[in-house]
Amino acid sequence: MTEIDRTAGWAEAAVREHAAENAAASREEQVLERIDRARRRKARVKEEHITMAHGSGGKATQTLVEAVFLEAFRNPLLEPLEDGAVFGVGSSRLAFTTDSYVVSPLFFPGGDIGDLAVNGTVNDLAVCGARPLYLSAGFVLEEGFPVEDLRRVTASMARAADAAGVSVVTGDTKVVQRGKADGCYVNTAGVGLLDRPADLGVARARPGDAVVVSGPIGEHGVTIMLARGELDIEADLTSDTAPLNGLTAALLDASPTGVRCMRDATRGGVATILNEIARASGVAVVVDEDAVPVRPAVRGACELLGIDPLYVACEGRMVTVVAGPAAGTALAALRAHPLGEGAAVIGHVKDDPPGLVLLRTAFGGTRIVDVLVGDPLPRIC
Amino acid sequence: MTEIDRTAGWAEAAVREHAAENAAASREEQVLERIDRARRRKARVKEEHITMAHGSGGKATQTLVEAVFLEAFRNPLLEPLEDGAVFGVGSSRLAFTTDSYVVSPLFFPGGDIGDLAVNGTVNDLAVCGARPLYLSAGFVLEEGFPVEDLRRVTASMARAADAAGVSVVTGDTKVVQRGKADGCYVNTAGVGLLDRPADLGVARARPGDAVVVSGPIGEHGVTIMLARGELDIEADLTSDTAPLNGLTAALLDASPTGVRCMRDATRGGVATILNEIARASGVAVVVDEDAVPVRPAVRGACELLGIDPLYVACEGRMVTVVAGPAAGTALAALRAHPLGEGAAVIGHVKDDPPGLVLLRTAFGGTRIVDVLVGDPLPRIC
Repeated sequence: MTEIDRTAGWAEAAVREHAAENAAASREEQVLERIDRARRRKARVKEEHITMAHGSGGKATQTLVEAVFLEAFRNPLLEPLEDGAVFGVGSSRLAFTTDSYVVSPLFFPGGDIGDLAVNGTVNDLAVCGARPLYLSAGFVLEEGFPVEDLRRVTASMARAADAAGVSVVTGDTKVVQRGKADGCYVNTAGVGLLDRPADLGVARARPGDAVVVSGPIGEHGVTIMLARGELDIEADLTSDTAPLNGLTAALLDASPTGVRCMRDATRGGVATILNEIARASGVAVVVDEDAVPVRPAVRGACELLGIDPLYVACEGRMVTVVAGPAAGTALAALRAHPLGEGAAVIGHVKDDPPGLVLLRTAFGGTRIVDVLVGDPLPRIC
Repeated sequence: MTEIDRTAGWAEAAVREHAAENAAASREEQVLERIDRARRRKARVKEEHITMAHGSGGKATQTLVEAVFLEAFRNPLLEPLEDGAVFGVGSSRLAFTTDSYVVSPLFFPGGDIGDLAVNGTVNDLAVCGARPLYLSAGFVLEEGFPVEDLRRVTASMARAADAAGVSVVTGDTKVVQRGKADGCYVNTAGVGLLDRPADLGVARARPGDAVVVSGPIGEHGVTIMLARGELDIEADLTSDTAPLNGLTAALLDASPTGVRCMRDATRGGVATILNEIARASGVAVVVDEDAVPVRPAVRGACELLGIDPLYVACEGRMVTVVAGPAAGTALAALRAHPLGEGAAVIGHVKDDPPGLVLLRTAFGGTRIVDVLVGDPLPRIC
């Protein structure tokens, strides 16, 4: 990490780094101009009260995180705003991450809040390049919640932990009065060991890189929406919730130096991840709509719901940026793993226009894919 | 850790260990008989639904933890059911812990949910003998929660983290609909480094040890009850919420081998901690009521509320068991620290009756102090 990384804001650091490594003089001037603009345009929460959009994982969440949490807690480990923090202890490098889960309903086709809470934190560690080791589990229970449901949730967590090769080693239980929660909220935090030499980050994408997804997108989000039963749609869909640590390990073993970054595409979907990469790296991400794997049932439900699958959460899929020459090896490694069978190159990194995600549509046009605004699918995790 | 520790239940392991080290043959038989009884008497949750008592930190919480969480997640790191899990990474030993906070009201004299959430996790690490390093922060926000209140909470967390010398390095935000939470719930998890050679645990108390509290008890719990305004009591009280890592470090430096265990006396109060120690170590804890420091305002409020200060939560006090010969040194070390000025020896460890806490009352009688039953003070943290 450079000295600038330690003292400047995360976007600024990323852009400066890119400037230093990749740009010609005139390009560097543009970059510095962007830094100045970013400096002047400090994140501000305009709303006086929290809205559902603040939990979407999209634009409102990012603003809240930057204007409130980053502002309060600012430190060099938090500032990159990656899925987990990475630090050294003795001669080891560890990753540490947390997520709270408030999914509704608690039980849905393909999973429940329990395996979701385990897989989500396992995945946040895995995409940092870490081997997940230990999880904590914090429960907020509503008075009146059936003990049998709690047993189902914990049994599901135990199976998921077993499948991912992690242990739940510490925990906590709180109870709130009837009406002060929604059955059960679960928080997991996780510690993982960085035992591979990979150097990953959303600021590491470079022109010429390939953008890969590990399988069909949007299944988790659509499954949750349908499980609520508010829509008169029937579809044979299950959540994609799964632990990605086996897949990330296989990818890093196959291409130790070719992988620029990995991110699991949860709230805000693939589109939000791609925007984070484009901004942090100061590059353009160009996606071919035809190349994005989407199951017909997801596509159909999204059309009826009026939402773009690119914004719908997955809980067992990741977006990976790999150096162009490594794309073939990376894709083969992903496809050789049961959780990566449907992996596909969906686009490429270019240098212009920096900070933007462009979609080449099936009809031959091109449109900008922005960060998610609002929250069309609340409480999907 | 012995092999038995890795394969048997936590109470069993503790009792066996005690048997091996301390007991004569006849005593050992008694101990084995207790193990057999414990084996037959598996923890069972009798209720079909979660009640407020399951969040009290007392008997119902213990049963839920043993019957549901320990049953589902059973592993050697979780089984001791200490305040945090301890494991090795490379040549380092780390502690890892979590707590969720649902205190009501969110703001109270002396603190708020923010500093409580930081101090609570710092303290859980500190009483494991660890130096707290890094925290995670997970927020569950209710739609409509004032952004200004969130800023107050995060500012308070940042100040508390600064005071304790830790950093909040990773986080998460979820939003639930109006009426599905109570403003704001906070989870923190923490990682600390065991850089002192102490060997601590609730199963390590031995006859002849002294029991010490670090200051007047019950202030946090009573402050929260009064802050709710439901009682017509006025008292000049503030929460004792504080980071104990400076105090635990001072104590361990003063008496590296004399300290048997440290526990912060939160939910369930001092009485619950003493019961855990008595059971896990297979010893009797005898407390002198007159020796327990309780401020007059706390004593008065407790009398009006009809509760015993021994069951009321503190958030900046700890219970310590120290070897008899080390008691003087330990007490002096505690009293030399601003957060331990009011430290006092409140009792001693004896060998009979094993597993029980006895109180010598101010009137010269003796009564058993059991684990907290029910929850007279819900949501105090």
